Amino acid sequence: MTRILFHAPASNPEAWQRAFLQAMPEAEFRIWQEGDDGPADYAVVWKPPLHMLAPQQATRRDLKAIFNIGAGVDAILQLGDGLPAGVPIVRLDDAGMGMQMAEYVTHAVLRYFRRFDQFDAQARAHQWRFLKPHKKSEFSVGILGMGLLGQRIADALAHFEFPLRGWSRSPKALPGIECFSGSDGLDAFLRGSRVVVCVLPLTAETSGILGRVNLARMPKGSYLINVARGGHLVEADLLELVQDGHIAAATLDVFDEEPLPAQHPFWQEPRITLTPHMAALTLRDESALQIAEKIRALQRGEAVAGVVDRIKGY
Amino acid sequence: MTRILFHAPASNPEAWQRAFLQAMPEAEFRIWQEGDDGPADYAVVWKPPLHMLAPQQATRRDLKAIFNIGAGVDAILQLGDGLPAGVPIVRLDDAGMGMQMAEYVTHAVLRYFRRFDQFDAQARAHQWRFLKPHKKSEFSVGILGMGLLGQRIADALAHFEFPLRGWSRSPKALPGIECFSGSDGLDAFLRGSRVVVCVLPLTAETSGILGRVNLARMPKGSYLINVARGGHLVEADLLELVQDGHIAAATLDVFDEEPLPAQHPFWQEPRITLTPHMAALTLRDESALQIAEKIRALQRGEAVAGVVDRIKGY
Repeated sequence: MTRILFHAPASNPEAWQRAFLQAMPEAEFRIWQEGDDGPADYAVVWKPPLHMLAPQQATRRDLKAIFNIGAGVDAILQLGDGLPAGVPIVRLDDAGMGMQMAEYVTHAVLRYFRRFDQFDAQARAHQWRFLKPHKKSEFSVGILGMGLLGQRIADALAHFEFPLRGWSRSPKALPGIECFSGSDGLDAFLRGSRVVVCVLPLTAETSGILGRVNLARMPKGSYLINVARGGHLVEADLLELVQDGHIAAATLDVFDEEPLPAQHPFWQEPRITLTPHMAALTLRDESALQIAEKIRALQRGEAVAGVVDRIKGY
Repeated sequence: MTRILFHAPASNPEAWQRAFLQAMPEAEFRIWQEGDDGPADYAVVWKPPLHMLAPQQATRRDLKAIFNIGAGVDAILQLGDGLPAGVPIVRLDDAGMGMQMAEYVTHAVLRYFRRFDQFDAQARAHQWRFLKPHKKSEFSVGILGMGLLGQRIADALAHFEFPLRGWSRSPKALPGIECFSGSDGLDAFLRGSRVVVCVLPLTAETSGILGRVNLARMPKGSYLINVARGGHLVEADLLELVQDGHIAAATLDVFDEEPLPAQHPFWQEPRITLTPHMAALTLRDESALQIAEKIRALQRGEAVAGVVDRIKGY
């Protein structure tokens, strides 16, 4: 019998158990407890401790794959060399997260494009005042990270006819999107993007990518939307660029420290819109179904999508 | 030479003149002044006084059509029987307004669906708190008025997979939309719509349609978005239903009196989001091009779209 070992802090493990019972009734689902070093075929995890995946006694030698119940695998990969070599780490492919990201980003882009942030501030001050609209031809949206999530966001924005740009590590050609790649392409990408949306994986290369130099390359009066990881952004640099007016406003769902500490200056800055890491929730039923399908494919000896390249970091 | 007579209060008539010079260089464009009773072939108007269209001396007998530079013709039709009989009144067909409406409504629907209104209020109170998401299957959006604008809004919301309903005066069948019609269909339409979006024309039949009885038919915890005319809504009834919690929140772009008076109670109600009649602006260049094409079609003896039925009122 296929043995699934589960661990995800701050989740509802019994609800995950019910979702897997539905998706894969033929498997045994075990909620990991500290000290459980027993054998397992598959691990389903979020932010696991290293000793869950690689106990001292090497009793996890049956482990065939590690499934991350999120799109970003940075929390697993930071466990480093102790991770069992040769065991594939598999991330979720979309599983409902692309739609949620598209909703979040479309809302934020329309909000800035139609100046709803300013109309809201006016209404709170009891002011009825017309504001000159932005022109769509001057409101290009640049997406940093053109994987499944980035492409899903681009699809949604294309419906509203925003000029679209995309940046990825390696060159891509995507219809209707001006594509840039590599460190050589980043400068031109940023200079032409009135809105920058970050959905990059967090890796050694992308950590701190939204720092002073790159933020300053964005046009004056531009907007930042970060739905990836807090580690992409140098928070103090953004704050300065917002306060000196170079960046008009930002919408952030992720932070260096979460929950955002009470004394953090972002709370005091009305041009920075904060949400509590809710842009894309892992949907239990969709995720359990996707993982069950991938386990069955692996058992048939087939390849599965979403296997992480440990060198690239995603 | 084709003589176009123009009048639109609070517009920039010289900018309209330039737009028509571009769109229809063969025409003579004249900005109407009080007392100008001279002949004209076409009137291009917004909220005209009756004596502009029908001067005492009957010198406007050459008038072949009246073009309204907006989608709603209520301000012209209220001029009543004095309007020259037999002269077609033509409204704008979309001309960029559908896209603007789709942007406005999609923003408002996503805002309520993803609870950004509540996340914003929390952030202003320096609170980091997760809120349980709504389910899309329980977030049906019902559009009152399924003409060009309503259909354009439905297209945008369909991209995000909201369950869609539409209500119109006469029966329609539209793919992917549960259609209701007539006064018989209104009750069922309202009872099943978690969000009601009003884009109706303002006529004797639709005036006050959003009053106590109909608002109370909407499900508890539902949302109202009015981008049509202030006259559709009974403002005091909405306020009561929001304050007793039956309607969760509303987004209004149009009001009985505009600008909204300083002492109006809507300013004090945080669950009512106000914008200063900006949902869909008339775009000069697009509108001048559309009117120029229609004038040429009429001159060739062809039919044009957007001719108003004075009995129906739109």
